[in-house]
Amino acid sequence: MNKENVNTRKINLQEIKELVINVFQNQGCDIPNANALANTIVSAEQDGSSSHGLFRVPGYVASLQSGKVNGKSSPKVQHQTPVILKCNADNGFASYSHKIALPMLADAAKINGIAALTITGCYHFAALWPETEFLANQNLVGLACTAFKPAVAPAGSIKPFFGTNPISMAWPYPGGNPVVFDMATASMAKGEVSIAARDGHTLPDGVGLDGDGNPSNDPKEVLKGVLLPFGGYKGSAISLMVELFAAGLTGDTFSFEAQENDNNDGGPPKGGEFIMAINPEIMAGSDWVNHCKLFFDNLSSFEGVRLPGSRRHKNRLGSDVREVNVELLDKIKGYL
Amino acid sequence: MNKENVNTRKINLQEIKELVINVFQNQGCDIPNANALANTIVSAEQDGSSSHGLFRVPGYVASLQSGKVNGKSSPKVQHQTPVILKCNADNGFASYSHKIALPMLADAAKINGIAALTITGCYHFAALWPETEFLANQNLVGLACTAFKPAVAPAGSIKPFFGTNPISMAWPYPGGNPVVFDMATASMAKGEVSIAARDGHTLPDGVGLDGDGNPSNDPKEVLKGVLLPFGGYKGSAISLMVELFAAGLTGDTFSFEAQENDNNDGGPPKGGEFIMAINPEIMAGSDWVNHCKLFFDNLSSFEGVRLPGSRRHKNRLGSDVREVNVELLDKIKGYL
Repeated sequence: MNKENVNTRKINLQEIKELVINVFQNQGCDIPNANALANTIVSAEQDGSSSHGLFRVPGYVASLQSGKVNGKSSPKVQHQTPVILKCNADNGFASYSHKIALPMLADAAKINGIAALTITGCYHFAALWPETEFLANQNLVGLACTAFKPAVAPAGSIKPFFGTNPISMAWPYPGGNPVVFDMATASMAKGEVSIAARDGHTLPDGVGLDGDGNPSNDPKEVLKGVLLPFGGYKGSAISLMVELFAAGLTGDTFSFEAQENDNNDGGPPKGGEFIMAINPEIMAGSDWVNHCKLFFDNLSSFEGVRLPGSRRHKNRLGSDVREVNVELLDKIKGYL
Repeated sequence: MNKENVNTRKINLQEIKELVINVFQNQGCDIPNANALANTIVSAEQDGSSSHGLFRVPGYVASLQSGKVNGKSSPKVQHQTPVILKCNADNGFASYSHKIALPMLADAAKINGIAALTITGCYHFAALWPETEFLANQNLVGLACTAFKPAVAPAGSIKPFFGTNPISMAWPYPGGNPVVFDMATASMAKGEVSIAARDGHTLPDGVGLDGDGNPSNDPKEVLKGVLLPFGGYKGSAISLMVELFAAGLTGDTFSFEAQENDNNDGGPPKGGEFIMAINPEIMAGSDWVNHCKLFFDNLSSFEGVRLPGSRRHKNRLGSDVREVNVELLDKIKGYL
C-alpha cells in the first residue's frame, strides 16, 4: 500500500482491536480465536507494519468464509519429550496456537536450556516476530520459520519450488527491546515487485527471472516469471533450511505440497511452523547479558547500522493513532 | 590455489594422513590431537576441498609454534542439563573437541529430540561440515556455526565488524549422503577476491566496498576496503545470527573481541562454536524419511539444481589420489 496515493482515516489501536474482534466473531470465530487473531493484527499495526495488520483481514475472512480455516479451533499441545512439544492447531489460524503453546515452550527452554515446538495443521498469515519476541521478552533466544506455496526458484533453476519461507530470530536484550529480524528468504516480496512495475522502477540484480527464465531487472517481466531467493545460492541454502525446518521437522507440508492442497481462497495455505527457544543463561552463563550488550552497543555505534527490529519498536512507543486506507477500512466494516 | 598454474605431485589419502600425523606430532601435538587434526585435513582432501586440507597445515603449524594453541589439549565436556553440553577445548584445535563431544551431543539429541553443544576456548581452522555430517550420518539434523575476526561490514556500514561467520546445516538422508551446506556469510572469501584481482576479473555487485566505503566491482579496490555480507541486509542478519550463536550463546569471543586477543600468527583466533542436533524421528515422526526423500527428489529433478554437498560427496567416492601443489607439499615436509 502506498499511503501517499490513497485516502486514509485515523483510527486508534483500541478501535482497531474492537473492530477486528467483532469482524472475526461475526465471521464464525469463537471468542478465544477472535481475540488471538485480533492481538496479532493490532501488534502489527502498533509496530507500523501495515502489510501484516488490517491489510490481511480480507484474507483471514476469505479463509473463514470458504470453510478452509476453523474459527473455533481448539489447539492441543503434547510433550513428546521434556524439550519437544507438538501442537496440533486443529485447522485454526496460527495465532491461537501460539497463545496456548508458546508459554509451554518457554517453560521447557527455561528449565532445560533448549526446546522446540512444532505446530501442524495451522494457517499462518502473519509476521513471525510475535512468536520470537514473546520468547525474547522472557530472556530466551527465539527462532521461528514457516513455509508457504511455491514462489521462489531454487538457485540454478527457473521454476518456483520454495515458498517465500520467512525466518525470524529474536535476541533478548534485558532492559531494552529485543534485537529481532523477520524476513522472507525471497529476494523481494511479490507486492514490492508489483509496486515497482506500477511506478516504472527497475529492480536490482538478482530479484527475479522473466517468463523465459532469464535474469531481468524489469518488474513487469519478473511478474511473468519467478522470484529468486535473496543472495544467490547462499540465500537459496537458507531458504532450503527454512523449508526443511518448517516441513521436514514438523511433518507438515512442504511448499509444493501446500500448493496441491490449497483452495486459493486468498488466505494462507495449511502448513507447519517450527519454533525454537534457547536459554542463554544456561548455555552461556549469567554474564551473557553484559557480553551481548557490549556486542550490540559496538554494532549500533557503527554509522549506518540499525539494529534489526528497532524501527518497529520505535513505532510501538509512539502515538496509538494509525492512518488506515479508507477503502480497506470500509471493506473490513462490511464484514460486520 | 589455482591448480592450472602450479606444479603438482600425486599423493594418496593414506600418505597424506601419515604425513600430517607425523608433522603435528613433530610440532608438539600428542597422538590424540594429531590424529584428530589429521582426520579433519584428510576428509577435506578426500572431498576435494583443498582450501581446507593441506593448504591449512602451515597455519596450524604456525599456531603450534607460536605457543598459541595447545597441541596436547585435553577437552572436557560437561552436561549443564540433559540437553545442553559445554565443552572446554583446553586451548586446542576444535577437531579433538569434536571427537570427544559430538558423540555425547548425538546421544542427547537421540534421547531428547534436540540438544546443543557449546565449545569454548578452541581454535577452529576447518570447514564445519565434518561436525554437521557426523550428526546427519546418525540420522540427526546438524547445525553449526562459528565466528572469526572482523572481515565483513554489517549492512549499512563501511567498516569490518562481523567475521566471515560460516554456518553449516546437514540433513540426514537415510541410505544416501546427507544434504549439507557449509558457507561463509561473507559475500566471497578474501582469497577469491585476490584471485580475481590477479586474473583481472571484475566482481559481481555487492561483494565489497573500496577504501572510501563506496561499492566497487574492482577486486583491487575491494582488497583495500572491506567485504560485504552475502545478500545485502538479509545476509547481514544471518551473519548477525551466526555471530550471536557462536559467541553470545557460547560466552566466548565475538569477532571484534577475537581480533583484540589474537597474535596474528597465521592460524585461527581463539573462539567458540555452537553445534545443535535435532532428531527428526521424535519431532516429525517416523514418516520423516519418506517425506524428506520426496522433497529432495522433487528438488533435484529441477534442471540446474544440485543438492548442496553432492559435489563433495562425489569427490569422496572417486580415486584416493590427490594432486597437491609441490611447493606446499615440500613446505609441509619441512615441518618434519
